[in-house]
Amino acid sequence: MVKKGLLQRLSEGPVVGDGSMCFLLEKRGYAKSGMFTPEAVIDYPEAVLQVHREYVRSGADVVQTATFYATDDKLAYGTGKEKVAYSSVDINKAACELARKAASENDCLIAGGFSPVPSFRDEGEEAARKEFSKQADAYRNESIDFVIAEFFHDIREIEVCAEEMRKLNLPIVLCMRIGPGGDVNGTAVEDCALRMAKTGADVIGTNCSFDCNTSIKVLKRIKAALVHENLDKYLICQPTGFLCPETEDHPNGFFSLPEYPLCLDPRIMTRIEAHRFARQAWDAGVSYIGGCCGFEPHHIRSIAEELEPERKLNPPVHDMARAFGGEFFKNSLTSELRKEVLRTGDYWYSMNPASGRPFSSSVSKPKTGMKFQ
Amino acid sequence: MVKKGLLQRLSEGPVVGDGSMCFLLEKRGYAKSGMFTPEAVIDYPEAVLQVHREYVRSGADVVQTATFYATDDKLAYGTGKEKVAYSSVDINKAACELARKAASENDCLIAGGFSPVPSFRDEGEEAARKEFSKQADAYRNESIDFVIAEFFHDIREIEVCAEEMRKLNLPIVLCMRIGPGGDVNGTAVEDCALRMAKTGADVIGTNCSFDCNTSIKVLKRIKAALVHENLDKYLICQPTGFLCPETEDHPNGFFSLPEYPLCLDPRIMTRIEAHRFARQAWDAGVSYIGGCCGFEPHHIRSIAEELEPERKLNPPVHDMARAFGGEFFKNSLTSELRKEVLRTGDYWYSMNPASGRPFSSSVSKPKTGMKFQ
Amino acid sequence: MVKKGLLQRLSEGPVVGDGSMCFLLEKRGYAKSGMFTPEAVIDYPEAVLQVHREYVRSGADVVQTATFYATDDKLAYGTGKEKVAYSSVDINKAACELARKAASENDCLIAGGFSPVPSFRDEGEEAARKEFSKQADAYRNESIDFVIAEFFHDIREIEVCAEEMRKLNLPIVLCMRIGPGGDVNGTAVEDCALRMAKTGADVIGTNCSFDCNTSIKVLKRIKAALVHENLDKYLICQPTGFLCPETEDHPNGFFSLPEYPLCLDPRIMTRIEAHRFARQAWDAGVSYIGGCCGFEPHHIRSIAEELEPERKLNPPVHDMARAFGGEFFKNSLTSELRKEVLRTGDYWYSMNPASGRPFSSSVSKPKTGMKFQ
Amino acid sequence: MVKKGLLQRLSEGPVVGDGSMCFLLEKRGYAKSGMFTPEAVIDYPEAVLQVHREYVRSGADVVQTATFYATDDKLAYGTGKEKVAYSSVDINKAACELARKAASENDCLIAGGFSPVPSFRDEGEEAARKEFSKQADAYRNESIDFVIAEFFHDIREIEVCAEEMRKLNLPIVLCMRIGPGGDVNGTAVEDCALRMAKTGADVIGTNCSFDCNTSIKVLKRIKAALVHENLDKYLICQPTGFLCPETEDHPNGFFSLPEYPLCLDPRIMTRIEAHRFARQAWDAGVSYIGGCCGFEPHHIRSIAEELEPERKLNPPVHDMARAFGGEFFKNSLTSELRKEVLRTGDYWYSMNPASGRPFSSSVSKPKTGMKFQ
Repeated sequence: MVKKGLLQRLSEGPVVGDGSMCFLLEKRGYAKSGMFTPEAVIDYPEAVLQVHREYVRSGADVVQTATFYATDDKLAYGTGKEKVAYSSVDINKAACELARKAASENDCLIAGGFSPVPSFRDEGEEAARKEFSKQADAYRNESIDFVIAEFFHDIREIEVCAEEMRKLNLPIVLCMRIGPGGDVNGTAVEDCALRMAKTGADVIGTNCSFDCNTSIKVLKRIKAALVHENLDKYLICQPTGFLCPETEDHPNGFFSLPEYPLCLDPRIMTRIEAHRFARQAWDAGVSYIGGCCGFEPHHIRSIAEELEPERKLNPPVHDMARAFGGEFFKNSLTSELRKEVLRTGDYWYSMNPASGRPFSSSVSKPKTGMKFQ
Repeated sequence: MVKKGLLQRLSEGPVVGDGSMCFLLEKRGYAKSGMFTPEAVIDYPEAVLQVHREYVRSGADVVQTATFYATDDKLAYGTGKEKVAYSSVDINKAACELARKAASENDCLIAGGFSPVPSFRDEGEEAARKEFSKQADAYRNESIDFVIAEFFHDIREIEVCAEEMRKLNLPIVLCMRIGPGGDVNGTAVEDCALRMAKTGADVIGTNCSFDCNTSIKVLKRIKAALVHENLDKYLICQPTGFLCPETEDHPNGFFSLPEYPLCLDPRIMTRIEAHRFARQAWDAGVSYIGGCCGFEPHHIRSIAEELEPERKLNPPVHDMARAFGGEFFKNSLTSELRKEVLRTGDYWYSMNPASGRPFSSSVSKPKTGMKFQ
Repeated sequence: MVKKGLLQRLSEGPVVGDGSMCFLLEKRGYAKSGMFTPEAVIDYPEAVLQVHREYVRSGADVVQTATFYATDDKLAYGTGKEKVAYSSVDINKAACELARKAASENDCLIAGGFSPVPSFRDEGEEAARKEFSKQADAYRNESIDFVIAEFFHDIREIEVCAEEMRKLNLPIVLCMRIGPGGDVNGTAVEDCALRMAKTGADVIGTNCSFDCNTSIKVLKRIKAALVHENLDKYLICQPTGFLCPETEDHPNGFFSLPEYPLCLDPRIMTRIEAHRFARQAWDAGVSYIGGCCGFEPHHIRSIAEELEPERKLNPPVHDMARAFGGEFFKNSLTSELRKEVLRTGDYWYSMNPASGRPFSSSVSKPKTGMKFQ
Repeated sequence: MVKKGLLQRLSEGPVVGDGSMCFLLEKRGYAKSGMFTPEAVIDYPEAVLQVHREYVRSGADVVQTATFYATDDKLAYGTGKEKVAYSSVDINKAACELARKAASENDCLIAGGFSPVPSFRDEGEEAARKEFSKQADAYRNESIDFVIAEFFHDIREIEVCAEEMRKLNLPIVLCMRIGPGGDVNGTAVEDCALRMAKTGADVIGTNCSFDCNTSIKVLKRIKAALVHENLDKYLICQPTGFLCPETEDHPNGFFSLPEYPLCLDPRIMTRIEAHRFARQAWDAGVSYIGGCCGFEPHHIRSIAEELEPERKLNPPVHDMARAFGGEFFKNSLTSELRKEVLRTGDYWYSMNPASGRPFSSSVSKPKTGMKFQ
């Protein structure tokens, strides 16, 4: 039986993306906080495989290769060229193998990832193109199903990347990390959208930096811009899993929080907030719905559970988890509370969860000490 | 080379426990929320092994078998006897094998776990004793290093359990889930402590239900009670990783929160809060320091990092993680902020992390709809 | 010696307005919550006089007559015509006398107030004009110094009012209660500003409904709109004293809060927040700075203290109060804390004051149950 | 008609006290923050009279003389003896006259106040006794109805004061500012209660420093201690109107807050919180219920409204204010919301009012920089 491709799946209903790789590996002890390069695909392959598996089990339709920041220039960035342990080629190859193994467990699509390169800022377009090209070469011989560029905050850089991606003759997904203020140079959301669309990409949208609520607002503007120009593209939204309304107008989103990167735990979405996000995204016309930094397996599971009516299938984890806890609660609640909790999601939807921290404010003053690449 | 035993390690300095198994498996998709029985040791062994490994890598000295609620009466409790997939014997055996595999990776101790049984409440002491006895039998032929009873909220039940544990001739650790109000029948903290001590246990203390701050208060009272009676026991503290000051006076602790079990994410400790806990516990005379529900690998890592001066060793994860982020931040912070952040932990210690939820209060009104066993 | 007029004072530096009359009388027991008509000027004149005096003592340059909602149609609105105790004429006369008495204590200006009339909505422009005209007649024989229209949320109604105000040949101040969304019919802030300017008013701006932070944003837009059209008008800002960031986009501002009107206490500004407001308003080009509902004497005092360098005079209350507490603290602080607190306002400025309510969220969901007139 | 005395009124039902004098005068501009001495009774008598009147109008049964800190040693404390404007005798006389004027407006009782003296700490018991004696002399010729000592945090000092009070042959009320930790020397709440009872006082209890919730806890312990010893005394509770759960275990209560004294506004109780306090106090066996620093007229009004069934009378302010807003809301709510709000107090009782400050935490870390006397 032939595996259905991305575009066919998107034409039939929502596609569930996977969640965070870098941040999750970091919490588990397999990535360096602040660096987030994926040497673990070679050094700790079972750990990476396990993360992939959990997303597959949670209902993700896609396994994205653990190749974020896996270009030679970026791998060398933190440590100096002479100390780099592995080349981009080594890492991309190992990552694809792990993705393939996990994907095969539930007929998932394998997405080869592209991310921003320090060369773009430091040396210019052509140097960047070379890095993207090397990464594309690495994917050429791996049986991946589509390519996805993400975390770009400069429309010009993602345009260069898209040109190299096109040479692979695979469906193309482009994501920028932009909030209401547009890209790093102030290019408006609408302009970013139209320029991404004009690269020939099949799916466009946003990922990371901004939370689900801010990202939905941005996606609505992207949708409107496309409609206005009679352009028809699938939309993707993979926001950060850390709630951060106060950074809506800061170009770096949650990276500007004083809590970044070690104290973000209280900002992690609940699975209910993930349910709500999935519904709002689908209602806003987004078809490819997943998460980025901060999203964990239980959040992806909520997306799959929420979209079960549209997808007509339960995630593999259904043997052990149900939407809103389901019948598994039956023994741990008194009959009264059980009635209230189980009937519908209302009990959970009406909750504003507390953090148990009376000395904390609800939001923080963003700072401007973080830099990228 | 012979592995050092628990008591020798305790005599030499702090022993780092591991963190949550049930809640972590649940988030990852391998345990049923509200049930928390460990069938995964047979059905999804790599997932369980991976959790063990992450704790070992984080610096835990102990790998606790994934045998919580793994008695025949409890396994049958939710589903009915005829539907039980595996016997207690099956599960205990599989769990020991996984623990052994992980422990071997860093010379860790294997702890065979005991937990409360529904028989105690439903049928009485002798029925309970039978369940404990069966579980002890299962451990007899496995090369475990010590036994640990945990989550008991009735001093009489843990006394029965301790009697069965003694037959194994291994060091014994006893933990109750008690807050300032004492056990489920109102037996005072001090009385629980003295009665646990009198069972012949080597280590006594608390686990679960109450957060680190409340638990430290309880441990101080336990310490004082022992001192007052000239009893010398090692102390253990493995609190919940969910902050819940408002349930300090509720017998079920965080299980009384309206957010239990699906919306607890904002209450998860930060690694900084785990650092502080480790220091406070050690200063309060606690030698065995770990976590229960809600604790994840990055929290255990913080305990190991905090107690590095006392233990004179870094956790295995030191290749990829450092206390307070360490030098790995050097490329992602501006020079100004880097100075502030890296010099010491002050930047992090002075932080009261926000949850990004302006519509949430800081604490919730506890409810009384949860029941146990 | 002749009293300096409003326009001369504005040409020389900031003019300090007074604060809330209705809400303050209500708290003290002399006005009906939700009605806010000023029968107290006849029934409880000492209470009204005392409020005026406190604002004068706090440094206000203006005493605004207690004539809010004192038109015949409004006085009859809540109770029915036959039950009305006093006519608009009676009330306006009594109010002017009280204002005059208080103003004479510190050479203050007397401002005759105009407010929206139910006739405008119910019967149309001409009916409204008649009400404004009657109120103007009442002011004609009282020695007031200027007229001020406030709380209008329909640009057309304030235009009608301004026409009647002009017949008095006094300086004219016009204030609308508008947030970023403009007037009740969606007329943009900028259009409201230009139309107010074109009535021939001397001072234009906003009052009530929105808090100091939102109002400053609106005033900046008003300023920009005037500059763009080469119009030169003095600006006024008299916001509500209740902090309500969450109602910025709700046409009724703080009246949409679920806490309105009985539970607004925790939202009252501190005097430090009033200091900051005064500075920001002056920096934004606002010359007439006071407060509306929620502002109390200690807030007006902060405005006067903050603008002391520009006004070169201390408020009369200087015998008993100083900016940031001043030397009066010297006996109630330890020497260490005294040093920290007294040196500058830094201690206070860096404070985010807590409400002492761990079960409250920081903001509320606005509701839409309030109506006006 | 003869005015009913305090003890008769207490025997018939709840007696409503008045609210803050010092803090209210300070906000209005007639007292020095941090000093709080009452020179205003001579310098600004109408301002003091107006405060008294508002409490009378709100339903207070008692007018307490504005004589807090009005002993010669305290008056000289901040300024040096040579600079003191008025003697204790002058101030007490003027204060009594103002209280009498206000009390006569609603047949209220006049209470002559006593407060701690710096001499006690600096020079010892006999010096203190002399100050109390002088103040008692001042009251001797004024027609006051009873005496009340308040704000004492040393049981020995209030015992000395009580001895002098007894010489006036009037009913005696004694209040200490104690929380769960007892008096300044650690004398337990229960011991303070019994010792106050043994002075021959008619009414004992607490005032100031701690909020309504903490104070109710303390009053319950006082009640229990009296019952245990078969002592029968009326109880009084006049807590601070600033919510401060975090200072429950700090001897100085809200004076330890970093917000003291300039940023306490967000902590002021709502009138609903005052309703709840009145009910809880009465249910706990407290018969004399009023407020101290932070209590304002609208809070005292809530106490009177809440206890209307027991007192069978409405406060004078009933012409302009009703419990929970009453029918005066009828024109300012939509019919739907009106139904919800007016039916009962439920709408208000279920509210956790927000402060509109997303950057503030709910509570603060108490500090220890304040000192007294």
